[in-house]
Amino acid sequence: MIWYKAKGKDCDVVISSRIRFARNIEGYPMGGKLTDEKAEEIITAVSGAMGERYKTISYSNLSPLEAQSYAEGHYVSPDFAAAKNKRALILGEADNISLMVLEEDHLRIQCIEPGFALEEAFTKAVAVDDRIDGAVKYAYDETLGYLTHCPTNLGTGMRASVMLFLPALTMNRQISRISAQMSKMGITIRGMYGEGSEAVGCLYQISNQITLGVSEEDIIKKITEIVRQTVELERSARNSIYSDNTDLLTDRILRSYGVMKYAHMITSEEFMKLWADVRLGVALGIISEEDMSYDQLGELSVAVMPATLSLTSGAQDERSRDIARAERARA
Amino acid sequence: MIWYKAKGKDCDVVISSRIRFARNIEGYPMGGKLTDEKAEEIITAVSGAMGERYKTISYSNLSPLEAQSYAEGHYVSPDFAAAKNKRALILGEADNISLMVLEEDHLRIQCIEPGFALEEAFTKAVAVDDRIDGAVKYAYDETLGYLTHCPTNLGTGMRASVMLFLPALTMNRQISRISAQMSKMGITIRGMYGEGSEAVGCLYQISNQITLGVSEEDIIKKITEIVRQTVELERSARNSIYSDNTDLLTDRILRSYGVMKYAHMITSEEFMKLWADVRLGVALGIISEEDMSYDQLGELSVAVMPATLSLTSGAQDERSRDIARAERARA
Repeated sequence: MIWYKAKGKDCDVVISSRIRFARNIEGYPMGGKLTDEKAEEIITAVSGAMGERYKTISYSNLSPLEAQSYAEGHYVSPDFAAAKNKRALILGEADNISLMVLEEDHLRIQCIEPGFALEEAFTKAVAVDDRIDGAVKYAYDETLGYLTHCPTNLGTGMRASVMLFLPALTMNRQISRISAQMSKMGITIRGMYGEGSEAVGCLYQISNQITLGVSEEDIIKKITEIVRQTVELERSARNSIYSDNTDLLTDRILRSYGVMKYAHMITSEEFMKLWADVRLGVALGIISEEDMSYDQLGELSVAVMPATLSLTSGAQDERSRDIARAERARA
Repeated sequence: MIWYKAKGKDCDVVISSRIRFARNIEGYPMGGKLTDEKAEEIITAVSGAMGERYKTISYSNLSPLEAQSYAEGHYVSPDFAAAKNKRALILGEADNISLMVLEEDHLRIQCIEPGFALEEAFTKAVAVDDRIDGAVKYAYDETLGYLTHCPTNLGTGMRASVMLFLPALTMNRQISRISAQMSKMGITIRGMYGEGSEAVGCLYQISNQITLGVSEEDIIKKITEIVRQTVELERSARNSIYSDNTDLLTDRILRSYGVMKYAHMITSEEFMKLWADVRLGVALGIISEEDMSYDQLGELSVAVMPATLSLTSGAQDERSRDIARAERARA
């Protein structure tokens, strides 16, 4: 089950839950100072520990489009996709597990699950962590915990992130107030795509800022609590926006649906706006799940991204991509 | 066959062809100076001449919505619909014949046919004219021809009008040049709806300015020739606009189609823009006639007009009408 093609818990608001561990291996220098030989040793060790069920993708051999497409699926970071050093992605798509070998740290273990499922993601990530821990010796300090390249990851080395779809809190401009409150509690919320005031697609990521001096369980408990509150805030904001502006909102949503179904060309940015309207429409029951399912919406959100789209459609320039994107949306 | 629900000749460009005769009856004053009694005499005489196959609608008894709806179907003039004097519409919907009794003139005989069919409209209007001529005595002068309230209608009393759909000549702004040329030849072209530079729905009416000193046949011949040229100009403009901007035009047309099919509210003005895009799309084969036929487009163009829409949907205010209009478009 590929995470973005599946319908998860609380999927009206929660897109995905992600656990990521930063790990380094004793006896190897940190921070990109590795020779290719040493890098190969680490890749081989981790790949061997994961076994044959996981695919080891030598990232240095990928075309820029392929490299980018894994970032669009959230399997690797944009930095990792764009880097030049010897590195590998170890991917278990069926488990939603991805390991970036030789990103900023020697190893980033990630599990991303559809919907609100931090515990499940945590359990799976821990299993991977344990498996590798048996094969290599992690750099670990009794006081500082897991040693990481960047001090902000010291301690647990864990980042718990939940991707949320918050159109109503975006419309009523409550996001900045919520952001300020979270910040006091060591929690960050930021738009997933696009800089500036409005998050493209109304997608936001909530994650822990602090990794040191707290347990993994405490981090998950705190994020879970905050997400739960945010989900309720979003739902009640949707209800009040909908009851105050039923006709206008219905019209906006159905027009976006109509454009998505019929347009001949759609830019990436416009697509995300249409997608957000349609997703809200499904959540509000204005569009039936038979006409557009959460699975389809999830699949679309990745399929229309530039690199993934260029790979599947062969489109070379922006115009052809806009046409291919509209074709994909129609289908 | 109701004219606006049928597909006529050259329907990619020509909406309808109309012949109208202005007639007055000897022995009755012209220009609204009739007593109700005298008015009733004329209505009875004309109605009797037309016989039972035609419906006589006493216009003074109609609600404003009903009065207006006949104007939206082009059976009466807006002035006639809004007037207060004793008057009647004699209607043969199956024949596309309508008679305004006691508009500006005692009698306006009109035949409107779908598509490019001036000859057919003329033949039918003449038959009606002959029938009434046998029952009443027309005001006629050897030199001036048919006497009319307004001197611009003297002579034949005939106006031949063709309604054209000219989106390409609107886009490339050739209309004003064409208009100037026609004017020199005693022909008028004007936007059907809306004042100002751009005709709403890209609908224009070509008609003769001169009624005196020319024969009916000459008028029809001239208008036919001009319409034929304009149809060719429009078609070639469409081809060049389409081949120069295939993707952009396709996108615009399909978006309009998507909005028409899915929107929850559509204003009258927006509807005409969408309708024009969709109609052009059908003409260019971007939208198949199976998905949207000329008959449906014609029917829609009248069905969504304010008065007709209010009558069929019961919508009272503008918002309800916008919702009813979108419902009508979806269906």
